[in-house]
Amino acid sequence: MAKVKVAVNGYGVIGKRVADAVSKQDDMELLGVVKQHPDYSAKVAVMKGYKVYVPDQASLDNFKKFSVPAAGLAEDLFKSCDVILDCTPGKVGVTYKPLYQKLGKKAIFQGGEKKDVAEVSFTAQCNYDKAKGKQFVRVVSCNTTGLSRTLWAIHQAFGIAESFVVLARRAADPNDIKTGPINSLVPELTIPSHQGPDVQTVIPEVPITTVAIKCSTTLMHMHIIRAKLKKPATKDAVIKVFQNTPRVKLISGVDGFLSTSHIMDYGRDTASLRGGRDDLMKILVWADSISVKGDELIYIMAIHNESDVVPETVDAIRAVMNVCDVKTSMAKTDKALMIGAGEVPAAILVGEKGKETPFLC
Amino acid sequence: MAKVKVAVNGYGVIGKRVADAVSKQDDMELLGVVKQHPDYSAKVAVMKGYKVYVPDQASLDNFKKFSVPAAGLAEDLFKSCDVILDCTPGKVGVTYKPLYQKLGKKAIFQGGEKKDVAEVSFTAQCNYDKAKGKQFVRVVSCNTTGLSRTLWAIHQAFGIAESFVVLARRAADPNDIKTGPINSLVPELTIPSHQGPDVQTVIPEVPITTVAIKCSTTLMHMHIIRAKLKKPATKDAVIKVFQNTPRVKLISGVDGFLSTSHIMDYGRDTASLRGGRDDLMKILVWADSISVKGDELIYIMAIHNESDVVPETVDAIRAVMNVCDVKTSMAKTDKALMIGAGEVPAAILVGEKGKETPFLC
Amino acid sequence: MAKVKVAVNGYGVIGKRVADAVSKQDDMELLGVVKQHPDYSAKVAVMKGYKVYVPDQASLDNFKKFSVPAAGLAEDLFKSCDVILDCTPGKVGVTYKPLYQKLGKKAIFQGGEKKDVAEVSFTAQCNYDKAKGKQFVRVVSCNTTGLSRTLWAIHQAFGIAESFVVLARRAADPNDIKTGPINSLVPELTIPSHQGPDVQTVIPEVPITTVAIKCSTTLMHMHIIRAKLKKPATKDAVIKVFQNTPRVKLISGVDGFLSTSHIMDYGRDTASLRGGRDDLMKILVWADSISVKGDELIYIMAIHNESDVVPETVDAIRAVMNVCDVKTSMAKTDKALMIGAGEVPAAILVGEKGKETPFLC
Amino acid sequence: MAKVKVAVNGYGVIGKRVADAVSKQDDMELLGVVKQHPDYSAKVAVMKGYKVYVPDQASLDNFKKFSVPAAGLAEDLFKSCDVILDCTPGKVGVTYKPLYQKLGKKAIFQGGEKKDVAEVSFTAQCNYDKAKGKQFVRVVSCNTTGLSRTLWAIHQAFGIAESFVVLARRAADPNDIKTGPINSLVPELTIPSHQGPDVQTVIPEVPITTVAIKCSTTLMHMHIIRAKLKKPATKDAVIKVFQNTPRVKLISGVDGFLSTSHIMDYGRDTASLRGGRDDLMKILVWADSISVKGDELIYIMAIHNESDVVPETVDAIRAVMNVCDVKTSMAKTDKALMIGAGEVPAAILVGEKGKETPFLC
Repeated sequence: MAKVKVAVNGYGVIGKRVADAVSKQDDMELLGVVKQHPDYSAKVAVMKGYKVYVPDQASLDNFKKFSVPAAGLAEDLFKSCDVILDCTPGKVGVTYKPLYQKLGKKAIFQGGEKKDVAEVSFTAQCNYDKAKGKQFVRVVSCNTTGLSRTLWAIHQAFGIAESFVVLARRAADPNDIKTGPINSLVPELTIPSHQGPDVQTVIPEVPITTVAIKCSTTLMHMHIIRAKLKKPATKDAVIKVFQNTPRVKLISGVDGFLSTSHIMDYGRDTASLRGGRDDLMKILVWADSISVKGDELIYIMAIHNESDVVPETVDAIRAVMNVCDVKTSMAKTDKALMIGAGEVPAAILVGEKGKETPFLC
Repeated sequence: MAKVKVAVNGYGVIGKRVADAVSKQDDMELLGVVKQHPDYSAKVAVMKGYKVYVPDQASLDNFKKFSVPAAGLAEDLFKSCDVILDCTPGKVGVTYKPLYQKLGKKAIFQGGEKKDVAEVSFTAQCNYDKAKGKQFVRVVSCNTTGLSRTLWAIHQAFGIAESFVVLARRAADPNDIKTGPINSLVPELTIPSHQGPDVQTVIPEVPITTVAIKCSTTLMHMHIIRAKLKKPATKDAVIKVFQNTPRVKLISGVDGFLSTSHIMDYGRDTASLRGGRDDLMKILVWADSISVKGDELIYIMAIHNESDVVPETVDAIRAVMNVCDVKTSMAKTDKALMIGAGEVPAAILVGEKGKETPFLC
Repeated sequence: MAKVKVAVNGYGVIGKRVADAVSKQDDMELLGVVKQHPDYSAKVAVMKGYKVYVPDQASLDNFKKFSVPAAGLAEDLFKSCDVILDCTPGKVGVTYKPLYQKLGKKAIFQGGEKKDVAEVSFTAQCNYDKAKGKQFVRVVSCNTTGLSRTLWAIHQAFGIAESFVVLARRAADPNDIKTGPINSLVPELTIPSHQGPDVQTVIPEVPITTVAIKCSTTLMHMHIIRAKLKKPATKDAVIKVFQNTPRVKLISGVDGFLSTSHIMDYGRDTASLRGGRDDLMKILVWADSISVKGDELIYIMAIHNESDVVPETVDAIRAVMNVCDVKTSMAKTDKALMIGAGEVPAAILVGEKGKETPFLC
Repeated sequence: MAKVKVAVNGYGVIGKRVADAVSKQDDMELLGVVKQHPDYSAKVAVMKGYKVYVPDQASLDNFKKFSVPAAGLAEDLFKSCDVILDCTPGKVGVTYKPLYQKLGKKAIFQGGEKKDVAEVSFTAQCNYDKAKGKQFVRVVSCNTTGLSRTLWAIHQAFGIAESFVVLARRAADPNDIKTGPINSLVPELTIPSHQGPDVQTVIPEVPITTVAIKCSTTLMHMHIIRAKLKKPATKDAVIKVFQNTPRVKLISGVDGFLSTSHIMDYGRDTASLRGGRDDLMKILVWADSISVKGDELIYIMAIHNESDVVPETVDAIRAVMNVCDVKTSMAKTDKALMIGAGEVPAAILVGEKGKETPFLC
């Protein structure tokens, strides 16, 4: 079967990761990436062997001036591909949509775009089939992806009658030196924050209300989830659900995972086992934090906002190209990206059925 | 009537504020404060005219060495007072209790001590009468105080069937340079966090579950509260409740209150109108954030952790001395501390009864 | 003598402080302040009794909409005053200059403007006389002010053959939640950074090279100064120079001043003794850090960037109005602003002449 | 030739990196590592195939309890090795020295120990030969290593008459959530700070004075260096020196390297090209910042404090074992660690000889 020809428009935090990810899939071919400035990221792309296209003539001149080889203009790249991965900044993707339409190309947008940019808002394990064969699909944001993965699993196991989520958001990406706040907490004053309705674009069955605050940190988002279940659960049962949920990993404070810093430290320690990035594409749920009282469930999770949407984007390619089913796609993606490689088992002692699970310390 | 003679044991973040507060009450006399080290805080205390006592001979020698006048040993101070305000670090207060007992003195502890250090856990507007005439009273922590004030008001108006609170905690006080984290989010993995049960030491009628995370900030705590009410409410009605709740102030993002930084900036702008500290002893509730859907209430509030317990401590003195009723005490305290001076009205347009309140922008 | 009529254009970090400062001078009258938005700062200004003018009709409408009383348009305010204090954001002041010229008004700009906006770049104790009677004067930035004060004193005492300064800059003001970086160090890559040449606009006699880096903090700037002196000095002698330098204060780590956090904590502790702001308008030099080896001098100082230029601005008013000499003006300003009130003596033991000064611990 | 048998005592920030590094050398064998707690780091070590030893029986019990396989007690490991890499926390290494002596083993300490723990303080390119055959060698700290590498190169090219360095230090390692400060600048008040004398343990020929401040960041240290040269230089000449200095890399703001954040972002982008860690073992000097005026040189550099000492430690092994010369060792180390892989050329246009170098933008 011919490989799917993929173009990546935008080479920032997400773009460079999906480019790496696509280049590792045996059924895809990365035709090139679009990058505006000839900076260190562009130079690294060239070093990795990616063809770097530019959006316009001005960029072309600039690449030439700084001796960074440009492969041509973005539109030429788009014409020759099967699928465009739009990784431009939020709200910019929608401005490219007319071009993608004109060229008759399929495109996968990111969660910075509004839902109506696409026919389907997508999280592979929740609604892969809905995206099959579509022209425009939106991979939802990192936060929405994390909520969709875990809430969907809980909903299928126990039913969710209502859920309330507080998102403690990292305020800036690690390489963003312009954005604050330094030393402050910034609430999103409109309630619900946009993430709640966004989750429902993927799993409308799950009632959810979200409140978000921005914190002075760059590493990860943290979510505190409280759900009323339709039927009573136990901590053991919830642990088992998460153990069996794709792209979700249980961690434990007992192992020293006491913060988002420790999680990313672990990501760095195990990067060599996953081919070189400290990215953690699974959602990390603290087993210790899982608290169940009858039909009330609480848990805390961390989200690596730079990377959890990367495997989703890869799966979305297979969905729009209609080349295989969800199980096959997710398995291929996870294997190629070595998701789960370098994983250490969480220190969990699952207690007697129906009782609170005792923890190791 | 003779003034109540007050000693302050410990002159840190809380101790120096309650010393200032006591010295402003016309029915109290600040006999002195106990301070271990002859540092700038001790020198400022001397400059303010406070008698500075020390815990032991070693401290006495050290004060002499650095030419900071010490008034004597702590025990001598305690002997001559009516009430000791124990503002020693958490878990240290309990080690002083035997001395207070031996001397037959009343003592007011802070929230860093466990509840069983005292006969009553105290928030003036919730349970002042229970503390009347008692020997040992504990003013609960800044977080617990804030939750008690607002939840109690809501409970009295609508009844609270259940409540769930996420506390985004400032990780260190502004003058604490040793404590981190820098650039991290640190969840309290045991659920409920200790604040929930602590609130119930004050208002056992209100069911509450809390989850706490530590954030890289020094200024204020932020709480996100979600409550199920026993009877339906409206946003207007909740706003009116908070407008009539003592030591609670509504603020609005419309006025530029977009973060804890803005609140403290306002505190600094108005300090001269309250006698000189940027302290904000009221709990700040964002009017914009108040969201009501039938019997579900959500709101966000900020807590100035350095100062909200200061008026409580002053009231606790009057309670244990049984000199007046709660209304009189709170009024005297608030007037003397100029709580509420320098207040700007929040930009709130209260809408039609039963409808969501429209905001100004 | 008639009071000088003063208008303040811009009511941000600096504007609100100089408005407070002018209102405390017995030879000045604050006619009003210009503020664009009807936010909490505007409301506080109104509460303080300041007349709040607005730049244009749109602002006027907005003030009306939010029920914040506006006194009129800025131009009307300017017409009726003697001196305009331009406290608009950096590079905006220059755009107002034509208006000030058209109205024939004197104006004092801040350090965010380029030097050629004015006839003189000003630090009172260095060059007050040069500003006498001028129409346009620029009070230099907080950093330049601090360097001018201390280097000028050292230069007059010992002569400075060359100086090298590293500025560790606070990245954002405390009420600025938009600006980062979070968790980064950002060097100014052009050397010298602009502060060096700027210092020479005030004291051209002093050779200086500066390098600046931005740090993830909001409180204060810190400077590390290394100077080659024209004649040898001793630590004692340098301490005596700084003890006798106006608007410079020695502090000591022995007293617990271990960081910018501790300095601002002290500022808050003593705010009530200075009329209500935690501002520290003096430059804080760590006595401990003063290191002298023959003709090499090193010292570390901290600068309260929000306020050190405030007394300079007040003095500049008297200079342009030519109402008194520098000594008189600085004395009046310092007294009215209670600069130096609430000061604790630094723990310094000045050693034998010609020897290193021993410190207390 | 038999491989050198290496034990690593301590598996923290440095220990885990030198363990990885040793395991990549074809002339060394990693016998095992010593780790106290069975946390995620221990589990990752096991996963990587390292034998994990423990310091005592209590640790052994704890590993068993948490099902993490321990290979035995540290002393057994030490007995069977040729060289012990002591990566215990600062000041702890010296307490192990008697054991190493008793066992008659060579040991390499880290810079957290005082200089007299060892016979030689070591930076490979400066004084490899002095460490040849020694029993105890100390690899100096990250900061001292960076200063030694660059100052030594400058000294050899131009002679250094005097140097003054300000170190803006990261306050805590990325995985350290206990240590602050949050939002503060903390100067080391004793001048010179310890780094200056420490540099002279490696290159006593270079006169140096250092001043250090701690900043609220976790990523990297930044140094601002100002040196008086014995003979005049040019920017071109200095650039060429650094281009030819081992383990030093020029970077440029023109390429987008505007902060320590950008450098670490680049480290992460290129980690896959160096085998999986984002570590940057070279010292990064901003070409833009290099400023030369006659005999005065200024430059700014960044130091990846977690990793720059790793190659030094590997070289120190070969030095104490006396198996090869410095050139051979450094070449082997750099190749095995892929130091310099994934490097992008800095955007530098070297100008005419004797003139300031023009930069690209």
